Amino acid sequence: MINFEALFKVTYGLYIVSSGDKTRANGFISNTVFQVTSEPPAFAACCNKLNFTTEFIQKQGLFSISVLGKDTPTEIFTNFGYKSGREIDKMAGMDIRYGESGLPIVLNSSIAFLECKVMQTIDLGTHLLFIGMLLHADLLDVTKDPMTYQYYREVKKGFSPKNAPTYIDKEKLLTNVKDASLKQYKCPVCGYIYDEADETKRFKDLADDWLCPLCGCEKEEFFEIK
Amino acid sequence: MINFEALFKVTYGLYIVSSGDKTRANGFISNTVFQVTSEPPAFAACCNKLNFTTEFIQKQGLFSISVLGKDTPTEIFTNFGYKSGREIDKMAGMDIRYGESGLPIVLNSSIAFLECKVMQTIDLGTHLLFIGMLLHADLLDVTKDPMTYQYYREVKKGFSPKNAPTYIDKEKLLTNVKDASLKQYKCPVCGYIYDEADETKRFKDLADDWLCPLCGCEKEEFFEIK
Repeated sequence: MINFEALFKVTYGLYIVSSGDKTRANGFISNTVFQVTSEPPAFAACCNKLNFTTEFIQKQGLFSISVLGKDTPTEIFTNFGYKSGREIDKMAGMDIRYGESGLPIVLNSSIAFLECKVMQTIDLGTHLLFIGMLLHADLLDVTKDPMTYQYYREVKKGFSPKNAPTYIDKEKLLTNVKDASLKQYKCPVCGYIYDEADETKRFKDLADDWLCPLCGCEKEEFFEIK
Repeated sequence: MINFEALFKVTYGLYIVSSGDKTRANGFISNTVFQVTSEPPAFAACCNKLNFTTEFIQKQGLFSISVLGKDTPTEIFTNFGYKSGREIDKMAGMDIRYGESGLPIVLNSSIAFLECKVMQTIDLGTHLLFIGMLLHADLLDVTKDPMTYQYYREVKKGFSPKNAPTYIDKEKLLTNVKDASLKQYKCPVCGYIYDEADETKRFKDLADDWLCPLCGCEKEEFFEIK
């Protein structure tokens, strides 16, 4: 038996993983970035094969990680999560530094960054796991804590920091009182909840190419939870 | 340039990764557990090749993950972090459930657990990265938040939750006032700080086989930071 609520007890941060160069670059919101060895210092980044950024990383063999701070505004998630770099230039209008490796580093809301050179690429089916040796790293803002995935989920949905699963049930009850016909749809990949009570559109009325704002999962993958 | 303080902005939870069966089992404290794919749900766990538990996982092709709650007492970290299963039975006296896969699941201070079957083993030099398909998962305590690595480091050392790097500097200054001869030694792997001001022994007087209480790194790898 798999209780998917248990998966949300695994802790992650939130990052913008980027690649490319001054002529063309792209980045996406990721929560799966983690150190794997210390000698040499190496980091893993897990990227969906369908992500545009994945093509840049494969081509260039390099990726950067911007660690997002706790006060990262919704616009950053909208730009790097909602949109596709195949249609727009996500880096346009952003505060970008080109690192020692030539990689773009998104500075907006970032408290630290890392630049990595791909040493291994592991095929995990839907995703590629890039293992990157750390080339450069530095702090950008020492006054702020990193944003955690738990905080993001809770703040985005206005949940209490305590006891998320029970609190979701209370939310559902409250929503029921407000409008019994409003529904919630959950992303099977990252657990993001599209709650019609908080939105201006019914889920069914969203465009067919609508993607999960957090992980980019397709609309048709979402399932109704209420 | 690598500023190692930047690495501490990457967020992790804390876990006991276990393997074995009813006749013999072992587990260790890990912070590198993360989901890598959703179809099928799969998790990665990064294990030092020298860890005794790694041998169990390689032999059995299975591992369990206990997600530690925020109020996990020091005794749990002492048992699963300080000690080696080659010398003691870490599971003795612990509250263990044997899961559907036969795996031991440490229940002490755990808020959720996952059982995984190894699908791929990736050699990362000093570590093995096990990619495990999720077999079973459930919540154990819905009232508690997971412990984060940041929280652990801060609470263990009594640091303020804000702005760890600057706060360390203040600590150093305070310690200087107390006893200028007391020193701090830092683990190059996980950043754990052995602060003589908080301990009963000078670092040099610790046994040669003393290991980092958090990640098991050897004493001789530590470097003086003050």
